[in-house]
Amino acid sequence: MKLWDKGISIDEKIEKFTVGNDRELDMYLAEYDLTASTAHAKMLGQVGILKEEEVTSIEAELNKMKVQLEEGSFIIEKEFEDVHSKIEYELTKALGETGKKVHTARSRNDQVLVAMQLYFKKNLSEISGKTKELVDVLLGLAEKHKDNTLPGYTHLQVAMPSSFGLWFSAYAELLIDDLYLLEAGYKVVDQNPLGSAAGYGSSFPIDRDFTTKELGFSTMKYNVVAAQMSRGKCERTVTANISSLANTLSRFAMDVCLYMSQNFDFIGFPDELTTGSSIMPHKKNPDVFELIRGKCNKLQAIANEMILITNNLPSGYHRDFQLIKENSIYAVENIKEILDIFTHSISLINVKDVDLNDEKYKYLYTVDSINDLVMQGSSFRDAYKEIGEQVQNNTYSPSGALRHTHKGSKDRLSLDEIRKKIE
Amino acid sequence: MKLWDKGISIDEKIEKFTVGNDRELDMYLAEYDLTASTAHAKMLGQVGILKEEEVTSIEAELNKMKVQLEEGSFIIEKEFEDVHSKIEYELTKALGETGKKVHTARSRNDQVLVAMQLYFKKNLSEISGKTKELVDVLLGLAEKHKDNTLPGYTHLQVAMPSSFGLWFSAYAELLIDDLYLLEAGYKVVDQNPLGSAAGYGSSFPIDRDFTTKELGFSTMKYNVVAAQMSRGKCERTVTANISSLANTLSRFAMDVCLYMSQNFDFIGFPDELTTGSSIMPHKKNPDVFELIRGKCNKLQAIANEMILITNNLPSGYHRDFQLIKENSIYAVENIKEILDIFTHSISLINVKDVDLNDEKYKYLYTVDSINDLVMQGSSFRDAYKEIGEQVQNNTYSPSGALRHTHKGSKDRLSLDEIRKKIE
Amino acid sequence: MKLWDKGISIDEKIEKFTVGNDRELDMYLAEYDLTASTAHAKMLGQVGILKEEEVTSIEAELNKMKVQLEEGSFIIEKEFEDVHSKIEYELTKALGETGKKVHTARSRNDQVLVAMQLYFKKNLSEISGKTKELVDVLLGLAEKHKDNTLPGYTHLQVAMPSSFGLWFSAYAELLIDDLYLLEAGYKVVDQNPLGSAAGYGSSFPIDRDFTTKELGFSTMKYNVVAAQMSRGKCERTVTANISSLANTLSRFAMDVCLYMSQNFDFIGFPDELTTGSSIMPHKKNPDVFELIRGKCNKLQAIANEMILITNNLPSGYHRDFQLIKENSIYAVENIKEILDIFTHSISLINVKDVDLNDEKYKYLYTVDSINDLVMQGSSFRDAYKEIGEQVQNNTYSPSGALRHTHKGSKDRLSLDEIRKKIE
Amino acid sequence: MKLWDKGISIDEKIEKFTVGNDRELDMYLAEYDLTASTAHAKMLGQVGILKEEEVTSIEAELNKMKVQLEEGSFIIEKEFEDVHSKIEYELTKALGETGKKVHTARSRNDQVLVAMQLYFKKNLSEISGKTKELVDVLLGLAEKHKDNTLPGYTHLQVAMPSSFGLWFSAYAELLIDDLYLLEAGYKVVDQNPLGSAAGYGSSFPIDRDFTTKELGFSTMKYNVVAAQMSRGKCERTVTANISSLANTLSRFAMDVCLYMSQNFDFIGFPDELTTGSSIMPHKKNPDVFELIRGKCNKLQAIANEMILITNNLPSGYHRDFQLIKENSIYAVENIKEILDIFTHSISLINVKDVDLNDEKYKYLYTVDSINDLVMQGSSFRDAYKEIGEQVQNNTYSPSGALRHTHKGSKDRLSLDEIRKKIE
Repeated sequence: MKLWDKGISIDEKIEKFTVGNDRELDMYLAEYDLTASTAHAKMLGQVGILKEEEVTSIEAELNKMKVQLEEGSFIIEKEFEDVHSKIEYELTKALGETGKKVHTARSRNDQVLVAMQLYFKKNLSEISGKTKELVDVLLGLAEKHKDNTLPGYTHLQVAMPSSFGLWFSAYAELLIDDLYLLEAGYKVVDQNPLGSAAGYGSSFPIDRDFTTKELGFSTMKYNVVAAQMSRGKCERTVTANISSLANTLSRFAMDVCLYMSQNFDFIGFPDELTTGSSIMPHKKNPDVFELIRGKCNKLQAIANEMILITNNLPSGYHRDFQLIKENSIYAVENIKEILDIFTHSISLINVKDVDLNDEKYKYLYTVDSINDLVMQGSSFRDAYKEIGEQVQNNTYSPSGALRHTHKGSKDRLSLDEIRKKIE
Repeated sequence: MKLWDKGISIDEKIEKFTVGNDRELDMYLAEYDLTASTAHAKMLGQVGILKEEEVTSIEAELNKMKVQLEEGSFIIEKEFEDVHSKIEYELTKALGETGKKVHTARSRNDQVLVAMQLYFKKNLSEISGKTKELVDVLLGLAEKHKDNTLPGYTHLQVAMPSSFGLWFSAYAELLIDDLYLLEAGYKVVDQNPLGSAAGYGSSFPIDRDFTTKELGFSTMKYNVVAAQMSRGKCERTVTANISSLANTLSRFAMDVCLYMSQNFDFIGFPDELTTGSSIMPHKKNPDVFELIRGKCNKLQAIANEMILITNNLPSGYHRDFQLIKENSIYAVENIKEILDIFTHSISLINVKDVDLNDEKYKYLYTVDSINDLVMQGSSFRDAYKEIGEQVQNNTYSPSGALRHTHKGSKDRLSLDEIRKKIE
Repeated sequence: MKLWDKGISIDEKIEKFTVGNDRELDMYLAEYDLTASTAHAKMLGQVGILKEEEVTSIEAELNKMKVQLEEGSFIIEKEFEDVHSKIEYELTKALGETGKKVHTARSRNDQVLVAMQLYFKKNLSEISGKTKELVDVLLGLAEKHKDNTLPGYTHLQVAMPSSFGLWFSAYAELLIDDLYLLEAGYKVVDQNPLGSAAGYGSSFPIDRDFTTKELGFSTMKYNVVAAQMSRGKCERTVTANISSLANTLSRFAMDVCLYMSQNFDFIGFPDELTTGSSIMPHKKNPDVFELIRGKCNKLQAIANEMILITNNLPSGYHRDFQLIKENSIYAVENIKEILDIFTHSISLINVKDVDLNDEKYKYLYTVDSINDLVMQGSSFRDAYKEIGEQVQNNTYSPSGALRHTHKGSKDRLSLDEIRKKIE
Repeated sequence: MKLWDKGISIDEKIEKFTVGNDRELDMYLAEYDLTASTAHAKMLGQVGILKEEEVTSIEAELNKMKVQLEEGSFIIEKEFEDVHSKIEYELTKALGETGKKVHTARSRNDQVLVAMQLYFKKNLSEISGKTKELVDVLLGLAEKHKDNTLPGYTHLQVAMPSSFGLWFSAYAELLIDDLYLLEAGYKVVDQNPLGSAAGYGSSFPIDRDFTTKELGFSTMKYNVVAAQMSRGKCERTVTANISSLANTLSRFAMDVCLYMSQNFDFIGFPDELTTGSSIMPHKKNPDVFELIRGKCNKLQAIANEMILITNNLPSGYHRDFQLIKENSIYAVENIKEILDIFTHSISLINVKDVDLNDEKYKYLYTVDSINDLVMQGSSFRDAYKEIGEQVQNNTYSPSGALRHTHKGSKDRLSLDEIRKKIE
């Protein structure tokens, strides 16, 4: 038949279509499946389904694979459709009858569920850690540059005086909001799903409290249908939380790209962080920050993609759920890389002297001028009118910046209070 | 000019374009602007910018408007572009010079920020409350129908035995995850932004701790640029959290619609919850649940819409942010209505007797049959093969359902443990 | 019961929930339902189901309602759930038995389908017309300002010389792509769905060719199931096409906002197109273009929202489809308003003199310098290196701009060729 | 520094971050860059910038690489960041000075633009071709199964009689709408961008008509800024069109999965198209169609992702655009695979006999019963009431199906008319 005449057999095509890149993705999960399989085997021992020596030998084999994994010699060969088949195969090859027993009272769905959640737990912690490092670097930059002035804009129009101190620490404080969301996400994934089997539980007398404790989960997802439906909910939650963090970083990167433009010229970066052009020899482009922005925008798209895949599906597992594994792992791995690159790059920023006396920044001080009049007894609205008329008639001249004394202002950054929010 | 020849002047068209439906939306915010204006005036008194009698008279006027609001007589007339202008106008009309002073040391941005966050705080609490009510109703239904059997499906194929108890309580437990996210959202909006002014603070000696306490915020958003940028972040966070809740309800509604189909025939609803057709007189359609599903899917789209509007904008206020007010209020008001309708409707559900002995459900018990063999000494994988061959050769006959004894299983729903998660 | 104790009865709540804002939305569709009902009645006459005098009297009554609609006196009272019930009611009130016959061989689904498609047809034409007007205005601006220079940017970094002529006509030519998509959308909606009834056709001997011709459709959607499923597809197609147009306008608006910033200062607008600030009396903000940008970004979200609502639903009508009526009408009505405002506003633009000799624009000419060397016999790559070294050593001095002679370049805008694309 | 202590140097990390997977993706574009480079070199010869023998030798080298590509021996080694550097390097290695001249009057942006558009042109044709094949298969299935009955559903409730003929040909006719959109997309990408250079044209006297003709484009994108901005617009357009096609396939796949459920039992597939379960030996799951559905839903997410990346960016190239290359290639390659798998799989469908006399389908005929009464002289609305009462009182008994005689109905599928739409 015409469609299939490229020497690839139909079966190969369908095999490729259904397996996809599961083998590669499962390398991210192998560690967690080994851990969970160990806990499952121990539990089977505990309730008398496996004998003690069976448990011991299974655990030993699983540990061998863990070592292989660390050494880089663990491979999911082409004959296995996923890491789960591979591991069961190895156990059976090594242990014979005992290996055939490890799948008692669980299902592959179970295995994916628990491995994904362990992966998310580990990585949400790591992402939070990296975010805190960035907060720290930004608070340090804010402290260092607290006296470097910047024009503040609204509507991209010159508005009121600002500072590098304000700019850096603004993003630090916004990142703390993202940490709150990451914590909630952690709570969602920190519930043991093991025991759900294919989504309807098991007739074996399994002990779910045992595996919950063994795997370090704070609680379990009790209802087995709910546990199965956590597939999808966990991925959506984690990627939505990553999306929020990505949004903050993306907007920050936009500022960086704009401020590097010759028309702003507020900041610069060392040459190794900029790239050139194939035809314009003078170019030093902020590609790193443009890619951070773009990649963060991609990450923001993923939560929506998750919904599109899982939406309107009735309860119970569907193969579609296999597809969200890829994107949630992509989101996790990418945000970690982006955080690393961002923290490194921003710490190399070159803050320039911005001359706020330049003619184009003249009106930065109109609010200060109004406030002067108010302090002299005028009402705010009348003072506003008076300064407004001066601007209109071109008679306005700024009297210079006033100090801001309230918390969180350019002259009182409240960095310690901000830092305290994450302690 | 051709474009404008419909008797509407250009200025009117532009006025309409820029003001949009702000007046209507601001009716949701009026209460909170009055509260925040009172706190702001008191603070101005505290730091000596307003005299005590000025504060008292401003507070009195604001209270009058609160009463009007409750009575339904507060109106934002067409000559005001928003509630903020309206309130300042009324104060000035009533109090003359004193009224002109209320805008001292704040900006309209400030007012929108703080009013939105107070609105979100109030409503996130309400949404959580309504969600808990639904959890309660579902746990009640689970208890009541714990012995009503249901076939469980994976891939929409008959899989293993399930029950109405499992089904109801699964959604209850999933809703608890949504509560975790709502709590994190609450934490994000529970930070006083007042004092940010136009996003760069004020040269007046304002006391932000005072308004934080007065308005009942747990902390403040210290950095004034961060406070301004909370516009956008708060809306995104709240709508993302609502989206998560909507996702759970949407999938539940899909189950309901499917289970009402004659081909499943698991449940029914009283006539007042179904609607008819213009040409088919026999129809009793599940419109309420279809609309819940559809409206929840709309809500899931909003978080993405928020990102599209705010994405790639550099820091500092842009008018675009005015547009996200509409959708975040829409999301809040709709999810409340949906929760009300859902809780009411699901409590009227008519659970039918499902005959699991029907031929089409025959294979529900294959896993139980395997487990029987395992209990008799076979390894899981060998038992799996044996039953598989019986199915293949058409010799399989189910020996009946086994009891499930582990936590969260169909015969041990662990409803108390689930309930404990939200206590 | 607690949920419902606000004095609103359950039935009212459910009524409100299911009817939603259908009555308001249906005012956009009334004209088209009247037209389609007339065509349907004529067809029933044609095939002998209605008598000639019945057709005449029905047509007369429908025409009366058309006149009321034009005069503004047609109202969908609260007792009707939509325009379709209202019209059938009026016919029956006026004509008795004859009125009860108009619904023969059709369904309300049919009516919505055909009314929506007629609405889309009319409006896609209008949107295309308005887009062409804007293209025209932009080509006029390009011609007028073809000699006004602008720096060209890549990565927001100064790159090569550009001009206002290039800038204006770039967007003109991009809008033509959007016209291609609008045309395809027109083709999708220009297929008569009438006759699908509830999605499975009718046992009456209806003549679908007759209504196709009568209503001015180019063809019909033959398959009745496909006709019903056009609900969803039409809305998605139309909103996706509007989204493309909105994307072009949104990016244009971003340029406008950026170029108005004091740091670029390339353009300005008369005061009536800018707005002020509640505290900064000097502000002239580009709110109109920010709102264009934001509203266009909202429009870009709608296509995704459509998918979220309709996705994963099996074939056959579901009530969810009622919800996409709102957003597709919103998209249509908004893009028309945006096009009007954009065309009007951009025509008032004030193009400023940009001094490309300013120090910050110095490197605009490096490519021209390379090209000079190439013309003198150097290879491109060697010339690139030579100028690169001059930049590096700070010895580069620009020799002035070269003329570009090829089609579509800054000195040869090819406006006639661009215009020809839409003729 | 802690972040970077894993033995990977900072530079490597940043290199990896910026280059990403460009080398792999560029393998899809290599063919088109070679073609476009040849056209560019010929044009340079035409206008006297290259000598005839230089053109000949460049063309010969580029052809050698084409042969390598076909043979699978063309590799982009790790030292090149993309295919464009690789090709220029090879030319220079082979031809010395002549190789250094090939980049005269173009930029890498130019190269990516033209290669992407040639890739899209080729693939949109292929996608249209594969879609037409599927339409053909579906019309064949409709013809074959035109007398196989099916219940028709609305709201997932039994509604009116339908047939497999209607079902298959409905999707065929809907796919034709998708073809209209693909055609419009083709028109958008079928405009030569070459000559835009970095987005602002070239001072060389290039002949853009020559390359337009040489490369087989129907016209050129004249304006050089518009040509550069086609990056983004082309990708968005192509992926939006693919998304529309994916939506049709996704809904079709949902029907397939539902109709395979034991509760519907309308269709089946041979074993090689179904997959099993790790614990339930009886399972024959429709994984292929679930993956089609899920992958199509992923494709529908991509258009939105494109917008998120490019939105709100001012004109001029930004590195972010590099990121949309991946997803647009992903969309193109995936939809081709999905179409292949779909066409193959659906052609193996096993259509079952559905007994419409089953009690649960009893009310399928109420509309026919009404129509009978109408034909006997009753008005539609009165007949509707009469049958409604019979249903209510449980006295309704169906008199059997009536033939539908109008175009596009179950008994007159109008397959030829549908087929004519794509001829």
